[in-house]
Amino acid sequence: MSARSDTASRSAFRTVDLIREKRDGRELSAKEIAHLVSGYTTGEIPDYQISAWLMAALIRGLTRAETAALTDSMLHSGEILDLTEFSAPKVDKHSTGGVGDKTSLVLAPLVAAGGLVVPMISGRGLGHTGGTLDKLESIPGFRVDLSRARFLEVLRACGCAMIGQTAEIAPADRRFYALRDVTGTIESPFLICASIMSKKLAEGIDALVLDVKTGSGAFMKTEADAAFLAELMVETGQRMGKKTVALITDMDQPLGLKIGNALEVEECIEVLHGRGPSDLRELCLELAAWMFFLGGGVKTISQGKELAGQLISSGQAFAKFRQMVALQGGDVAAMDNPALLPRAKHTADILPPAAGYLSGIQCEDMGTACVVLGGGREKKEDAVDPAVGITLHKKVGDRVSLGEPLCTLHYNHDSRAAHAKKIIERAYGISGTPPAPRPLVHRIIGASTAS
Amino acid sequence: MSARSDTASRSAFRTVDLIREKRDGRELSAKEIAHLVSGYTTGEIPDYQISAWLMAALIRGLTRAETAALTDSMLHSGEILDLTEFSAPKVDKHSTGGVGDKTSLVLAPLVAAGGLVVPMISGRGLGHTGGTLDKLESIPGFRVDLSRARFLEVLRACGCAMIGQTAEIAPADRRFYALRDVTGTIESPFLICASIMSKKLAEGIDALVLDVKTGSGAFMKTEADAAFLAELMVETGQRMGKKTVALITDMDQPLGLKIGNALEVEECIEVLHGRGPSDLRELCLELAAWMFFLGGGVKTISQGKELAGQLISSGQAFAKFRQMVALQGGDVAAMDNPALLPRAKHTADILPPAAGYLSGIQCEDMGTACVVLGGGREKKEDAVDPAVGITLHKKVGDRVSLGEPLCTLHYNHDSRAAHAKKIIERAYGISGTPPAPRPLVHRIIGASTAS
Repeated sequence: MSARSDTASRSAFRTVDLIREKRDGRELSAKEIAHLVSGYTTGEIPDYQISAWLMAALIRGLTRAETAALTDSMLHSGEILDLTEFSAPKVDKHSTGGVGDKTSLVLAPLVAAGGLVVPMISGRGLGHTGGTLDKLESIPGFRVDLSRARFLEVLRACGCAMIGQTAEIAPADRRFYALRDVTGTIESPFLICASIMSKKLAEGIDALVLDVKTGSGAFMKTEADAAFLAELMVETGQRMGKKTVALITDMDQPLGLKIGNALEVEECIEVLHGRGPSDLRELCLELAAWMFFLGGGVKTISQGKELAGQLISSGQAFAKFRQMVALQGGDVAAMDNPALLPRAKHTADILPPAAGYLSGIQCEDMGTACVVLGGGREKKEDAVDPAVGITLHKKVGDRVSLGEPLCTLHYNHDSRAAHAKKIIERAYGISGTPPAPRPLVHRIIGASTAS
Repeated sequence: MSARSDTASRSAFRTVDLIREKRDGRELSAKEIAHLVSGYTTGEIPDYQISAWLMAALIRGLTRAETAALTDSMLHSGEILDLTEFSAPKVDKHSTGGVGDKTSLVLAPLVAAGGLVVPMISGRGLGHTGGTLDKLESIPGFRVDLSRARFLEVLRACGCAMIGQTAEIAPADRRFYALRDVTGTIESPFLICASIMSKKLAEGIDALVLDVKTGSGAFMKTEADAAFLAELMVETGQRMGKKTVALITDMDQPLGLKIGNALEVEECIEVLHGRGPSDLRELCLELAAWMFFLGGGVKTISQGKELAGQLISSGQAFAKFRQMVALQGGDVAAMDNPALLPRAKHTADILPPAAGYLSGIQCEDMGTACVVLGGGREKKEDAVDPAVGITLHKKVGDRVSLGEPLCTLHYNHDSRAAHAKKIIERAYGISGTPPAPRPLVHRIIGASTAS
């Protein structure tokens, strides 16, 4: 410990008293929470006091008012994008993360094609989940690190833009997140809510659709945990004057048929052409419909789905995607011919050990297998291999026959492939009878209060 | 946060996993706890991880095995005094701290006069409580910072010695304690137990008598909290092969009639001469009896009290005290004539607002008033004024008449006296009927298993 913290001279609060209050389960005021966030962001409050407070907050929980205050303080620790120049509604979507979860790449151009503005700030892969930025960077030349000025130019030119978090957006969250990662304080719905919502609200949007994943490939394994987080985020968003809705969607098996950065871009192009796997297509239409609905462009969700379907079949959605890729420096030729995307040197099929029905895919393991192949990071400083990944040939409930592959690995290193294969073989379950089907959308939260 | 901690290369454990385990209420193994203690002591594990772990440990609690492992790891983070050269039993006493709690200065020479060895390592005032080292240093010339060699010489020469914690004794506790102080993680009986017991067991003693205070002047305000801590410390001591007993004693009003460093030395000299206030004298005899009993010198507690009484009335206890003071550089003339001890320049009486019975003295406030006068520290770097303090003229249950002072302030600064006076006036309660008496010793814990 380098120095004893005494911020009493700068603030009305003693940090140690605020730690003790939360430790004993008492509610802090908005001003007290602002003291912690601003003190930590400026470096006046040391790591060791914030980590003790975070642990107390994780175990004791935060009230709704505290969660809103934490979100608000983190939001105001940096800049809020000024998008008032855009007269169209500004809408975004955020997913809590999954495996094969690539809807953002479809939704940004699709919803922009419908006339809304989508200023999307995304993240990288975390743990076993993929990240939108990593996927975008598999497109040769695509830049996610635009300056604010260039970000606005792209938005003006095509109505959507997709970038990474900047230093100016919610800097407090950056510091809190890094500390949470090494102090066992990630897994709190209250802290997760404040982290996500502070970044999303800094985008200057009018409405937000949250895709909260549940199942074996999600961070929230149970529907109850997912619903708790979803309600918290919806309430926080609405409390801050944003139309917010959360869809609890299934992540008990990978979404779509492709996992891995370039493979997922390829699958998104298929969906934008009106093809692609049905679960991915259906979820994109559902999420787009909610974005249109919250943005005020349609009166019902079914109208929204219809609009989304038309924008795809007319080619407008793909044209918008192509335009955005070009504006952000990406190789348009590879969008027209996905065979030009990075390709792994080798492929290997994984065969079933028995015939029957595919009863389950342990979805976190599939994500981990993709990371092991090089498609994600095991350490922060790792480089990502854009080409590697997994294509699925069977989804849960499908009939499986001996000799017919379950999936195919795309790999560049034999040892990585061998390790991934072991993980994947454990991940598949086969049984004599088909399993009960799971819905794609489990529940919708906030719909009654959203509009 | 200066660096991401990754101690995996040095140890079988990942620190963040151990934090998460404790966060979720699971028990850590002795090896896992040793990893945390040694990693923190060497600086490999950063403050922010330990503070998160401490908060989790405070809220979730530790099992008996974890508490023992934490004590053991902190104990072995430094040296254990080798006192095998002494054939007599080595015994010590530790108090959890109070106001006017000065028994250590009587007990060390008294028990040494009975033939036992008392290697006493004490602390300074903490919060509103007084500290043995601060009291000893009010004796002109007295040194508490003896080298280990000199400490052993004093022990050989007179059977007792009183010093402060050295850098070699339980260095882990030093670091943990400093971190706990600023992260709201002091108030855990498990962490308090490990802190106290690791230091006491490093003294190389055979037996330990714990004086766990309860009441308005104690850190454990309720008897239930005091009993919980006492049981924990007794069990930990016994688990580590030391005869250990805890007396839960009253600290709902100051012990004796004097509060303040030199004033308390003066009162100890009175007790060593067979005089002094009855509560202080009685507690000294009781604690000494238990020290004799655990040390094997007597068969019953009443025999122990008798022996202690004889050692006082024969003058042997005071002679031993005088010898120890001389060996540690103190002014023996001031022991023979306490008027030579530091004296405050001014005194002021505090009068009762009404006649009746003294129904209570808010004891923490009395301690705080002594700190305000300069008798303790408000900040770590403050110097202590040895002369100031408070002499009580009335104890709880006494009749109070208008014009008859409740107590007298001894002070050197008018403004400090004015502030202390305000605190003290609030601290006294007067009522028409005498209050129910409280026992001096509430309970004894560990007696059946101690010998």
